Amino acid sequence: MSFNEVQIDLIRRLLRHGDEERVAKALDKFRPAELADLFRHFSASEQAAFVQILVDVNQAAETLSEIPDAILEELLNNTQIDLLTSILARMPTDDAAAAVGMLELERRERVLNSFEASFRERIEHIRNYPKDSAGSIMSGEMLTLPENLTAQEAIDRIRILAKSSEFIFYVYVLNDNGTFVGVVPLRRLISAQPDSPLKEVMVTDPIAVLANEDQEKVAEIVARYDLLAVPVVDEKFFLLGVITVDDVIDVMKAEATEDMYLMQGLSEEDRVYSPMSVSIKKRFPWMVLNLFSVFVTAAVVGLFERSIAEVVILATFMPVVAGMGGNGGNQTLTVVTRGIALGELKFSDSKSAILKQLFVGLVIGLGIGLITGLAAYLWKGNPFLGLILFVAMMINMTVAGFTGAAVPIFLKTIKQDPALGGGVIVTTFTDIVGFFAFLSLATFFLQYLK
Amino acid sequence: MSFNEVQIDLIRRLLRHGDEERVAKALDKFRPAELADLFRHFSASEQAAFVQILVDVNQAAETLSEIPDAILEELLNNTQIDLLTSILARMPTDDAAAAVGMLELERRERVLNSFEASFRERIEHIRNYPKDSAGSIMSGEMLTLPENLTAQEAIDRIRILAKSSEFIFYVYVLNDNGTFVGVVPLRRLISAQPDSPLKEVMVTDPIAVLANEDQEKVAEIVARYDLLAVPVVDEKFFLLGVITVDDVIDVMKAEATEDMYLMQGLSEEDRVYSPMSVSIKKRFPWMVLNLFSVFVTAAVVGLFERSIAEVVILATFMPVVAGMGGNGGNQTLTVVTRGIALGELKFSDSKSAILKQLFVGLVIGLGIGLITGLAAYLWKGNPFLGLILFVAMMINMTVAGFTGAAVPIFLKTIKQDPALGGGVIVTTFTDIVGFFAFLSLATFFLQYLK
Repeated sequence: MSFNEVQIDLIRRLLRHGDEERVAKALDKFRPAELADLFRHFSASEQAAFVQILVDVNQAAETLSEIPDAILEELLNNTQIDLLTSILARMPTDDAAAAVGMLELERRERVLNSFEASFRERIEHIRNYPKDSAGSIMSGEMLTLPENLTAQEAIDRIRILAKSSEFIFYVYVLNDNGTFVGVVPLRRLISAQPDSPLKEVMVTDPIAVLANEDQEKVAEIVARYDLLAVPVVDEKFFLLGVITVDDVIDVMKAEATEDMYLMQGLSEEDRVYSPMSVSIKKRFPWMVLNLFSVFVTAAVVGLFERSIAEVVILATFMPVVAGMGGNGGNQTLTVVTRGIALGELKFSDSKSAILKQLFVGLVIGLGIGLITGLAAYLWKGNPFLGLILFVAMMINMTVAGFTGAAVPIFLKTIKQDPALGGGVIVTTFTDIVGFFAFLSLATFFLQYLK
Repeated sequence: MSFNEVQIDLIRRLLRHGDEERVAKALDKFRPAELADLFRHFSASEQAAFVQILVDVNQAAETLSEIPDAILEELLNNTQIDLLTSILARMPTDDAAAAVGMLELERRERVLNSFEASFRERIEHIRNYPKDSAGSIMSGEMLTLPENLTAQEAIDRIRILAKSSEFIFYVYVLNDNGTFVGVVPLRRLISAQPDSPLKEVMVTDPIAVLANEDQEKVAEIVARYDLLAVPVVDEKFFLLGVITVDDVIDVMKAEATEDMYLMQGLSEEDRVYSPMSVSIKKRFPWMVLNLFSVFVTAAVVGLFERSIAEVVILATFMPVVAGMGGNGGNQTLTVVTRGIALGELKFSDSKSAILKQLFVGLVIGLGIGLITGLAAYLWKGNPFLGLILFVAMMINMTVAGFTGAAVPIFLKTIKQDPALGGGVIVTTFTDIVGFFAFLSLATFFLQYLK
């Protein structure tokens, strides 16, 4: 369920009139994710009033956890410090750490200093891990129990825990040294003989990730083993936190976006809803870089100005060879980049993957080259033009297949993101090769084209 | 943990020598997802022997559920019918239904007829839902209990259930009419007063999806509300099944791939590991379609052959205007398409989103046009050439911004996938507009360019 326009209008009016009670009533039955959506529609002062109401109905921490970063950052920096501190203190540590990271420096210090020492410590612990690492997205809220506890004792312990931690579906088991040794799914705990110790009930040899592991890798592991949460440990298998599947889903979305964005040289902050100035500022440098690449292409064409002057029809067919190469290259690039992201391409197979794409390019180039050559011959009546287009197309499509596969695989080999700027690299390559192949062949056979 | 090359070689040798016992021993400690990986390395006969061993160690159903479709299809159609039937009967219904769908027609009938009546019915029920609907990916394995049961009675029921259903974290509560009325997370069940009835413990007004809902929408809901599983119901809120978060993750991956693929006119089956013939067959028709679009572009250039013949420098600068427009258009397209996929663009905002991208294009066009104009002037010494390039670039970048945003939004409006072929539509548009703007301006001012 979501709010409709009438409801949103009503809430805004109530907010402006300071009728907190009726707003609180209108919010009843809605969930944090739905409440979070409202912020998009509010002015800064409406947002402030709304945050206060959310605090009153005890929904602020959960709702703020669901607000998209772009909107949250402004909100956090505009909220009264005391209010902010009390909200953040109720968030899971991973969300609180992320929120603290969005605060302006001075504000951040003040908020951190207002936290209870133990909470502050946990937040700073998470913030010490590098961006996009497992440690930076883990939550410290988890249920650990000693291995000698019986199943019934474990259930009794869970009973007396605070109600808040409802997102508990696994119990993590530690041995006497405090080392992480096993996992008991709640379902299994219930079914176990009440007097069996956890060490006999637990799944041993549990899957875990190191705190420095990249979040993309963590997402891969959770997806591969169908986990609901993955424990984060240090080298000595000391349990540091857990990453739950809902956070993994966020990581997966962000990584898919990143891949699509990197191929086009886009910045993460450049969103449909971000201000125009951000889009312009972020895209401009990339466009300047692009300009270099098209000028190089132009210089290649420039080499053949004399041929074009003599046979101007060449200019007409320039977009044909280059355009098809660009398309073929980008298709290959997409297949290979996505294959790498999904783990479909293991590193050992790179050579055959490149060869395959090269041959696919060659075969398609043969077919498309034939059609192009014939079409050009029928259109302009010159068989040599057709022949040259046929050969140029074949060369360019083969190179497109090779480049589309080789660029992301090469980037991966040198430990760069395989999607990095691939679209432009490949298009520049196929443009240059396409123009060069076509125009140099044409120059060689110029007398037959006149 | 995964198998290393030495281990894989060893297992293959043991398989060929029929030493099942030692293979079974080598598999100990590995998980289904890891065992599934092995199939990629095996020949057909090795696969067959391996399946038999997996059945013996009771891992076949779980392992086969983890094999990628492309490999699974062949395997299923090569496995002995009796063996196959017994494996599928142990799978969760959603995986079994998907597997049945991969079988050749005659084989499928035989397998379905060998199932127990109730299992067969559940499979056929799932298979009746349209592809990519919630119903087609739901599993029938879930725990439903009447609302009048007490918490303790519920726990006792769970205790005596088969061990197999370990992926249970929610209890679904039905009223006397069998209508779905609430959910109890296991954690809450344990903490509840033993004698409170479920209807007092449960979360009422539970989130659920209709069986005909699109799977992409289901994924959105699971992500939005941080669910571990979402119940699937009919119009009368009768519970049909559940979709677990691990299946949702698979849907999300597939949908992200689909978006990237659609933009480039690629088919889902065209993967890094798919046979060359598949890639060729799937890409060729799209390339032919493409060929039309580049020929239209060529025809536009052809209109200006006389101008180009007089001022051949125009041919040199053609790739500059078109190339930059293509890049700008594809950037915008990526931002908007991704924004739609992530639900960042609500339909009501389309007009402002298009306007924003148009203005971003205009501003970047101004800047890039200035640099281009200056660079061309410095390179070729003709201020008019610079001026024409400046204006053409501005026009083309503005159109690129508009098209990149309008194409996916328009496709969404007419209920098509917003990513559908966007890359080529946008590139064709910016090529044509770019060439036309540049060459028609040049023709108008031709005397100053000579």
